[in-house]
Amino acid sequence: MSREAVLVTGGAGFIGSHVARHLVERGYGVVVVDDLSGGFVENVPAGAEFVAGDAGDVGLIEGLFERHRFRHVFHLAAYAAEGLSHFIRGFNYRNNLLASVTLINAAVRHQAATFVFTSSIAVYGRNQLPMSEDLVPAPEDPYGISKYAVELDLRAAHEMFGLDWVVFRPHNVYGVNQNLGDPYRNVIGIFMNQIMQGKPLTIFGDGTQTRAFSHIDDVAPVIARSIEVPAAAGKVFNVGADQPVSVGDLARAVMRAMGKEVPVTHLPARNEVVHAYATHARVREVFPEAGAPVPLERGLAGMAAWAWKVGARQGKPFAGVEVERNLPPSWKALLTRS
Amino acid sequence: MSREAVLVTGGAGFIGSHVARHLVERGYGVVVVDDLSGGFVENVPAGAEFVAGDAGDVGLIEGLFERHRFRHVFHLAAYAAEGLSHFIRGFNYRNNLLASVTLINAAVRHQAATFVFTSSIAVYGRNQLPMSEDLVPAPEDPYGISKYAVELDLRAAHEMFGLDWVVFRPHNVYGVNQNLGDPYRNVIGIFMNQIMQGKPLTIFGDGTQTRAFSHIDDVAPVIARSIEVPAAAGKVFNVGADQPVSVGDLARAVMRAMGKEVPVTHLPARNEVVHAYATHARVREVFPEAGAPVPLERGLAGMAAWAWKVGARQGKPFAGVEVERNLPPSWKALLTRS
Repeated sequence: MSREAVLVTGGAGFIGSHVARHLVERGYGVVVVDDLSGGFVENVPAGAEFVAGDAGDVGLIEGLFERHRFRHVFHLAAYAAEGLSHFIRGFNYRNNLLASVTLINAAVRHQAATFVFTSSIAVYGRNQLPMSEDLVPAPEDPYGISKYAVELDLRAAHEMFGLDWVVFRPHNVYGVNQNLGDPYRNVIGIFMNQIMQGKPLTIFGDGTQTRAFSHIDDVAPVIARSIEVPAAAGKVFNVGADQPVSVGDLARAVMRAMGKEVPVTHLPARNEVVHAYATHARVREVFPEAGAPVPLERGLAGMAAWAWKVGARQGKPFAGVEVERNLPPSWKALLTRS
Repeated sequence: MSREAVLVTGGAGFIGSHVARHLVERGYGVVVVDDLSGGFVENVPAGAEFVAGDAGDVGLIEGLFERHRFRHVFHLAAYAAEGLSHFIRGFNYRNNLLASVTLINAAVRHQAATFVFTSSIAVYGRNQLPMSEDLVPAPEDPYGISKYAVELDLRAAHEMFGLDWVVFRPHNVYGVNQNLGDPYRNVIGIFMNQIMQGKPLTIFGDGTQTRAFSHIDDVAPVIARSIEVPAAAGKVFNVGADQPVSVGDLARAVMRAMGKEVPVTHLPARNEVVHAYATHARVREVFPEAGAPVPLERGLAGMAAWAWKVGARQGKPFAGVEVERNLPPSWKALLTRS
């Protein structure tokens, strides 16, 4: 079996740790780089080498490429707080775009074969439903804009330097290893954390906004496999579940999975995309072995068991808010706490 | 007459200095910020306050907003080297995107009324001709990607914070105050500089690639006026000349204007857009007073007289090339000289 070297950024985070594990299992020599801003060392799978650091650190990344001669790069490090990105514009672009560019430069210089990038359905913007890969992206928040800019930059890098890329646009992924303490993102993790603390579930608006919540097992194996599938090169793939669920229904499903009822508090609606669901015909065609998605109930049950085991995490408010104007009041309250 | 305070970034540069002059003439209190990386103090118009510094310096910009309470921001600072941007990705996004975001944040925090941004026809990508504002951008190089990301970010800032914006996409602008010493961009300035030094004119490829070269007097007054035209808010405008001219024909026209013949050297073709011309119906509708474009011959004559007066400038090679692979040989030669 090959021991090709692969780099996984964000490999101590949620999706990254699962991708890293699948790559270890497939026989790759996996190096994980993660700054632990949202990840945990214990998420890094056994068999992977862990390097604490910033994926945007040019010196660090250059040194790792020189030492390991990575054949493939999986770039999953990101701060994926879509709603907060309006208020942390500078951080968003440094963290999500400039770090990507550092890695693209290194992949070009060292002639890596493939650059696998996790983008987001945030690139689609609203009013483009169902979200299909053939639509022209029209992102409406700084997070989605930064992801789309990286997608375009990878196309430019392919054109100029021949770097192969694969782009995944996962959506609303949940499962084991999610950062339960992040107060801004991943509603399932937020709900479980609130339930464990006996706090009310907080819902922005009336809870009729829908998302297709996607289990990590429907996402991570496909991402890991993509470097072995020639037909995947140069393609964008939506990846995740088909079935949209309202946030209100989700709240009840999470309480059932956790086996505990708490009240629900409705906060003022945010400026956010109301409905989001995507087509997955392309990923099924290119990755036919992926199979049927994990049903929400089963996925929540597995994650709930894990959540009770690891316990509630204290929310860490984001320390570098750049603009406080129009920040949702519940997030503003976090500021004064920090 | 009002003395509303306006900020002009890049106001010691080419387009910025002309915009700043028009704003001074229209009675605004103009503050110019420019790091002089491509500009010259002597370009800053009389009557404007000059501050040497980086438009991406958060502390500097915040201090200026606090002191001057700018009502309008004209963001023209950029390193507009489209072809080179593949090789200076990190610098490109820091300089062109992150600096813009610093200014957008400040404009939002201090509730500026209008943010005027000079984008570029680089956002269109190739195979979209004529370039019309109704086309969906598809930029193909990091420079165009960074410009498009800022355009999208301004839309997001309007949606979330009500910041009004106007976007201009000028193309191939030439005229007095252009940096004649820049070896990577602005072919007319490069040609004039080569002619004054008795060097051959260098053309990438066979010279059949076309551009619509636009005189600064067709561009700068419209940009300066845009804050006074309510119909301009929230709109994107191509701005520049209509008539495409081949680079080969341009070389002959520049030699005629300069009154001096030199040989022409053809370098290997670059990976660049072959034809570029844009529609201008929208700018004519919203700015009807703009009038007919300056004919190329007349525009070149005026610039040639100025060029002979200021004399040749020594080309400053870009010091921070990040990727040398596939760099055009003529640019690679500059590296070893620096």
